[in-house]
Amino acid sequence: MSIYDSNSYFSCMISVSIIGAGNVATHLYKVFKKSEQVSVVQWYSRDLNKIKSYKNAVAITDQLSELELADIYIIAVSDDAIASVSEQLPFKDRLVVHTSGSVSIYDLDKKNKRGVFYPLQTFSKEAKVDFKKVPICIETIGKKNLPLLQSLAEAIGSKVYKVNPDQRKALHLAAVFVNNFTNQLYRIAHEITESEGVEFDILKPLILETANKVQHLSPYLAQTGPAKRNDKKTIKRHLKQLESEHHKAVYTLLTESIKKTHGR
Amino acid sequence: MSIYDSNSYFSCMISVSIIGAGNVATHLYKVFKKSEQVSVVQWYSRDLNKIKSYKNAVAITDQLSELELADIYIIAVSDDAIASVSEQLPFKDRLVVHTSGSVSIYDLDKKNKRGVFYPLQTFSKEAKVDFKKVPICIETIGKKNLPLLQSLAEAIGSKVYKVNPDQRKALHLAAVFVNNFTNQLYRIAHEITESEGVEFDILKPLILETANKVQHLSPYLAQTGPAKRNDKKTIKRHLKQLESEHHKAVYTLLTESIKKTHGR
Ligand SMILES: NC(=O)c1ccc[n+]([C@@H]2O[C@H](COP(=O)([O-])OP(=O)(O)OC[C@H]3O[C@@H](n4cnc5c(N)ncnc54)[C@H](OP(=O)(O)O)[C@@H]3O)[C@@H](O)[C@H]2O)c1
Ligand SMILES: NC(=O)c1ccc[n+]([C@@H]2O[C@H](COP(=O)([O-])OP(=O)(O)OC[C@H]3O[C@@H](n4cnc5c(N)ncnc54)[C@H](OP(=O)(O)O)[C@@H]3O)[C@@H](O)[C@H]2O)c1
Repeated sequence: MSIYDSNSYFSCMISVSIIGAGNVATHLYKVFKKSEQVSVVQWYSRDLNKIKSYKNAVAITDQLSELELADIYIIAVSDDAIASVSEQLPFKDRLVVHTSGSVSIYDLDKKNKRGVFYPLQTFSKEAKVDFKKVPICIETIGKKNLPLLQSLAEAIGSKVYKVNPDQRKALHLAAVFVNNFTNQLYRIAHEITESEGVEFDILKPLILETANKVQHLSPYLAQTGPAKRNDKKTIKRHLKQLESEHHKAVYTLLTESIKKTHGR
Repeated sequence: MSIYDSNSYFSCMISVSIIGAGNVATHLYKVFKKSEQVSVVQWYSRDLNKIKSYKNAVAITDQLSELELADIYIIAVSDDAIASVSEQLPFKDRLVVHTSGSVSIYDLDKKNKRGVFYPLQTFSKEAKVDFKKVPICIETIGKKNLPLLQSLAEAIGSKVYKVNPDQRKALHLAAVFVNNFTNQLYRIAHEITESEGVEFDILKPLILETANKVQHLSPYLAQTGPAKRNDKKTIKRHLKQLESEHHKAVYTLLTESIKKTHGR
């Protein structure tokens, strides 16, 4: 092996233990396993059945008291359980992070060094995740542990962003708009096409192109359509065409919103 | 040349003339030029300057009266001008189509055979267009001219959908939701992140993934987040966090919309 092997630039692998067995925990486990710069020491789940299929590849446990030494402990459990799980950890002065966009770093028990390792993406167990496309927002108390979290994110190919608590909250809220609310607009479009018996499929390329466009153009510049042009005739016709009061309300409010943005 | 050459399946190239020099006209011109199954007879623009750079590749004109014989005349001008341009055409009984999602087929002058060739995508002059990703919705009066319009769409690699007037209107309206309104949600997200000095860039992978997800999953099944879970604590916190009354109104309405869809 040449001494220029990429591993030789690292003094050691980053050892992590994962706590939780949900979407985020599972995807992190898989990507850490693939990285030559990360070793997974242990994986904890309160229900061993959830992770027993991995038992030949990693040490698994259902006892927090059995957790061994690691550089970083990653608590990837439901938001509501983060505080209580962190309290139950049987050690102190180690680096413990959660993965939530909305839970405060101070919800972690202060007996340990605290951090946040928030992957800004939407995860579901079935879908594959390419961590190169997952920005990771990191937060610590003081600067000391930032480099380690940064190296961990980089080890899985992610872009890293250092954020403060207000910034992380803003990102999490903005994510609700671009993910949950956008998806609901897709749903309304589905209802509209379905009511005339047309395939929702026809809209799929437009959905993709709309998302693609703002990858290199600001949403302000990317805007088009009747609301931006303040094309009153078309807006009136659309409102007449919509059958559901609730679709009308969404149409009206977002049309007003666009007009406001574009000074109409 | 082998007799199995793909062109040999066609008895002739489809000849088209393009009327208009905007976004749609320009992209159609370019893709027709590339197709071996389409020949562009003439390109009309009321302002010759707009198309004079193409004059060595195609016959250009600024006089409707100079339009020569073609299989299909494509009127790709602003919605409001379609009726009057179609009236001014100096011939009859030929196939004339417009490219609009919202203008009625009956707005075309009845001296000619009428049709619609509506590309359901968002076009801007700068951005490249891959017509394989542009569904084309076609409409005619009677069935006779459908096959020709269908062949034209297929000649540029597009998927073709035969629609009726109500279906085209529904698609056009649904497109406002998935394009204009979705883009406005991106804009609001931009405002939220900007107010905390965080880069909008961090949201871009999530924007793409949200659009990707509904390519193979219905928007109903793809939904996640506080509104779907009816997580009152988070919703309340988000509303408190939003500074603009107008952002609050959008948050509230779309949260209600999601709850309604998911029976909360
Ligand atoms: N999903 C996303 O798209 C996403 C994106 C970014 C960040 N996050 C954050 O990542 C964290 C995990 O989310 P997720 O989507 O992976 O959640 P999830 O799929 O619902 O999984 C939650 C996990 O937490 C465990 N758990 C819940 N309460 C527990 C307790 N009291 N003690 C021990 N374990 C407990 C669950 O165990 P059981 O299986 O036994 O119930 C499950 O393994 C959350 O903080 C979330 O905000 C999620
Ligand atoms: N853009 C899209 O994303 C899109 C998508 C699907 C369908 N469409 C439909 O396609 C059609 C064209 O849209 P577009 O986006 O290409 O529009 P555009 O870029 O605004 O171009 C409009 C064209 O129409 C010409 N025009 C306007 N009034 C005219 C008149 N009275 N006589 C002759 N020419 C006239 C304009 O000429 P000047 O340049 O001289 O003003 C210009 O060349 C519309 O029906 C639209 O609804 C558009």
